[in-house]
Amino acid sequence: MNRLNRYIPATAWLKEYTRGDMQTDMMASIIVTIMLIPQSLAYAMLAGLPPAVGLYASILPLIAYALFGSSRTLAVGPVAVVSMMTGTAALQFAAPNTAEYLSVVILLAAVSGLFLLLLGLFKLGFLANLLSHPVISGFISASAILIALGQVKHILGVKASGHNLIEMLESMWHNLADTNLTTLVIGVGAIISLHLLRKYFKGILMALGLSSHQAQLASKAGPVLVVVISTLIVAMMKLDQTGVKVVGEVPSGFPPLALPNMDFNLIMDLLPAAILISIVGFVESVSVAQSFAAKRRQSIDPNQELVGLGAANLSSAFSGGFPVTGGFSRSVVSFDAGAKTPMTGVFTALLILLTLSFLTGAFYYLPKAVLAATIVVAVVQLIDVKGFLEVWRYSKQDASALIATFTVVLLAGVEAGIITGVSLSLLLFLWHASHPHIAVVGRVAGTEHFRNVERFQVETNKEVLTVRIDESLFFANARVLEDKITQLVAQNKEVKDVVLMCTAVNMIDASALESLEMICERLHSTGIHLHLSEVKGPVMDRLKGSTLISHLSGNIYLTQNQAFEDLCRSKG
Amino acid sequence: MNRLNRYIPATAWLKEYTRGDMQTDMMASIIVTIMLIPQSLAYAMLAGLPPAVGLYASILPLIAYALFGSSRTLAVGPVAVVSMMTGTAALQFAAPNTAEYLSVVILLAAVSGLFLLLLGLFKLGFLANLLSHPVISGFISASAILIALGQVKHILGVKASGHNLIEMLESMWHNLADTNLTTLVIGVGAIISLHLLRKYFKGILMALGLSSHQAQLASKAGPVLVVVISTLIVAMMKLDQTGVKVVGEVPSGFPPLALPNMDFNLIMDLLPAAILISIVGFVESVSVAQSFAAKRRQSIDPNQELVGLGAANLSSAFSGGFPVTGGFSRSVVSFDAGAKTPMTGVFTALLILLTLSFLTGAFYYLPKAVLAATIVVAVVQLIDVKGFLEVWRYSKQDASALIATFTVVLLAGVEAGIITGVSLSLLLFLWHASHPHIAVVGRVAGTEHFRNVERFQVETNKEVLTVRIDESLFFANARVLEDKITQLVAQNKEVKDVVLMCTAVNMIDASALESLEMICERLHSTGIHLHLSEVKGPVMDRLKGSTLISHLSGNIYLTQNQAFEDLCRSKG
Repeated sequence: MNRLNRYIPATAWLKEYTRGDMQTDMMASIIVTIMLIPQSLAYAMLAGLPPAVGLYASILPLIAYALFGSSRTLAVGPVAVVSMMTGTAALQFAAPNTAEYLSVVILLAAVSGLFLLLLGLFKLGFLANLLSHPVISGFISASAILIALGQVKHILGVKASGHNLIEMLESMWHNLADTNLTTLVIGVGAIISLHLLRKYFKGILMALGLSSHQAQLASKAGPVLVVVISTLIVAMMKLDQTGVKVVGEVPSGFPPLALPNMDFNLIMDLLPAAILISIVGFVESVSVAQSFAAKRRQSIDPNQELVGLGAANLSSAFSGGFPVTGGFSRSVVSFDAGAKTPMTGVFTALLILLTLSFLTGAFYYLPKAVLAATIVVAVVQLIDVKGFLEVWRYSKQDASALIATFTVVLLAGVEAGIITGVSLSLLLFLWHASHPHIAVVGRVAGTEHFRNVERFQVETNKEVLTVRIDESLFFANARVLEDKITQLVAQNKEVKDVVLMCTAVNMIDASALESLEMICERLHSTGIHLHLSEVKGPVMDRLKGSTLISHLSGNIYLTQNQAFEDLCRSKG
Repeated sequence: MNRLNRYIPATAWLKEYTRGDMQTDMMASIIVTIMLIPQSLAYAMLAGLPPAVGLYASILPLIAYALFGSSRTLAVGPVAVVSMMTGTAALQFAAPNTAEYLSVVILLAAVSGLFLLLLGLFKLGFLANLLSHPVISGFISASAILIALGQVKHILGVKASGHNLIEMLESMWHNLADTNLTTLVIGVGAIISLHLLRKYFKGILMALGLSSHQAQLASKAGPVLVVVISTLIVAMMKLDQTGVKVVGEVPSGFPPLALPNMDFNLIMDLLPAAILISIVGFVESVSVAQSFAAKRRQSIDPNQELVGLGAANLSSAFSGGFPVTGGFSRSVVSFDAGAKTPMTGVFTALLILLTLSFLTGAFYYLPKAVLAATIVVAVVQLIDVKGFLEVWRYSKQDASALIATFTVVLLAGVEAGIITGVSLSLLLFLWHASHPHIAVVGRVAGTEHFRNVERFQVETNKEVLTVRIDESLFFANARVLEDKITQLVAQNKEVKDVVLMCTAVNMIDASALESLEMICERLHSTGIHLHLSEVKGPVMDRLKGSTLISHLSGNIYLTQNQAFEDLCRSKG
């Protein structure tokens, strides 16, 4: 792979791009566009933005990702969770539907893009690993609940606001009397229709003679059907004059190209939110990309994904858009529709641009309650009860991280929730690492294999104590090791040799090295030799130059069996 | 061990306390007291407090620790680093030598004591493991430099202040012209005397006929000699009237017993500093306690240490003192002087109380420059260049954590430095864990031992791929594992069986379990079976109920050798 291919993956696949690829990519882009338009409008509304901004965020970012992203299937654009996070963050600095609010959101996309780009260039993608699956699961489920509840006001046609579950419910309760019945009927009708379409549309289409694959694809147009029909009803019955909120005027034409307003203090204030939005977006995106790559036996490069998403967000900021990332459902549609290359994204962007230029009038009578309904139906599926039960059965520790994240997101917001979840995961891991499982081992008769004396019938020798420590030796457990060895030697008075079996020791850091030297010295002062066995290559490489090896009172054995035979023999 | 013994260790050793123990403990306490008095005065000055407060902090805390602490040798009281941290923290809320300043410091001791107590009761002592040896080393060295520089103003007799290295040097430079020559002579003279005494006093005493042990002990009185002589000189020559700053009036009598002023907002403001002071104090204390316990084949319980130190700090707060912890040099003296039990601390406390009651007049003419000199000579030894070089040679990663901590402490203060060091250590560890060493292994001929194909001459089979992952499987590397296995299988086209050798896998969390299930499913879809070998007891216990085991396409083997033989045999 040459340098250019590495930094701009598009240069690799563009060379082999054929006319056939172009046809399938174009077909796929039409289907993706049909799905993306109502999503863009809805997620803009979710972020408290004018509908046009949703469309702006679905043009340049798609082209930027096609150039710089490493996944061939990922479809980027506005997504539910990131849109909600954007809205929550921007609310702290400006009121919705004001010029300041829009400029805060644009700046958020710029800072987030820059941050992703920097992470990618410095190859810091591993930082996203900090978000464990349970934390992500808890965070997504709680966000889905918050998002769905946030939409209820559009479906009731009332005003409501709030940063967390309780504030939201309270505010909604106070305004319940203002419910607009027509809006409620439209909203609930849309939810029921969307739900039924999702469940039965494919079957109906197949009954009408479409193949399973065709029906699958066409069924994705279900939401568009609901959007079109409801818009027509509102337009014909002039329901907007009876209080049903509609999308209204959407300015037509190209997105406004401009540099974001770079206010340094505001940038600093937005940084924490931008970092969180970036990381959440990246994690969501990279999981989706990875699962598709595996299906096609391709691979993705997490650091290049950071560059791709960074470029997408920066270009979103430069064209008046808001933070974007890779979306699961639209990637599935794109994949199912046969998209071969990221060119699908480019074609989709062009189609959205055409829509913006010529079709914005069609959205005038689209009721907001229907957009809210599409959001509700989409996010409700993100609530992962089954996943929670599985984690709960497997590990109470992991489950506690999930529950903590879920609860704190609901009650105190996304930022606090994720920080709680990550901190708790780290602490639980450190707790585990600082309470290592330490087994005294013996030889399983008839083999060269050594196992825990408490779990297996094994051969041992009173004068040779073999200890297996099941953890890398580093600062979190350096002190524990000293304690345990001292304790074991005190309990076994006849011991002359201690063998540290290092099969599970993947690293020895400077703190642990100091502890090992201390242990060696103390054992030596009571006439006991310390030996090491089965030290791994990379660990041994580093130990070679250290004082531990020069001061070691015993030997280093390649295998535990050699150590055991040699030391037992020397006892006669 | 019954419940009472467990929470109040004193009840255990008091039962066996003999008259002989009492005699040696009393002797030791006299020597410790002689050393502790000038230290208490000096460290109170270091914290910006009146000298009497240093003595208050050396009475009740010693008794509280004797009751609740688990170390039989540790001598608690004011120490250099914690005193500096106390002063720095208090400066943010009040001006030195005011009543508010004193009440802030007292509150700091109370909050710190409460925090330690809670950590101990909830058995959270492992949190102190977060401070790796390199971080502690960097932090102590930088603190020593800051402390020593902070004393230069007393030795020059000028005014100076500042929160970091640069501010301090600047402020000193501006006031250099005000240097009081007499003070300078006294200060420099004291430093030189202290240094010479430390180096040659023991030799001189031995030449005078004392035994090595006696000379060792008596030489610890060196600083007292300097204090006494310089006080006499100043008193006789009335140097205090020529501008030499002296300790002055020290109120005699019992420490003032009172509840600290519990201002909730102030407590919240002080909390971060209190937490840091507590943890630093605890780490310092527990290392000292552990090294003495090992010498006498006793053990200490870190969680009980937290309770002991918590009680000591609370009682310091209730008697007008400031934060205390276990000190290294005074514990050495106590140990060398033959202290058998914590009763030494009780006797020392009584002797200090006697001093406070009857001897405070003797400190009037004690020059501050001499106290500063004792601090300088004590802390300069804490600068650990040799330790740094050793860490640098062993691991550049650990060294970078040390350097970062050192630099940030010097330039931005202790809090920022420790936070930087701990975060960096954690990130480096996670970086390591998320880039696990993965080896394809084969059998070392003539043994049942499997090693890396790239490092050893080993037997392999084209259709059986054995992969050893040198890391616990958890959220930090769950994604990496998927990538690596997919990659390895893609490179080895003939593979029919993949064996995951789990010798180094000490834990599989929910995130990694999900990844393993994904790997198993993907391999299965291409006709490859996934097997596990040498899964450890605790890991297997947990896996048993999981879906991974029920969906596993291959077997679980007790030993890697059995897996290899079985799978090779089935290939015929």
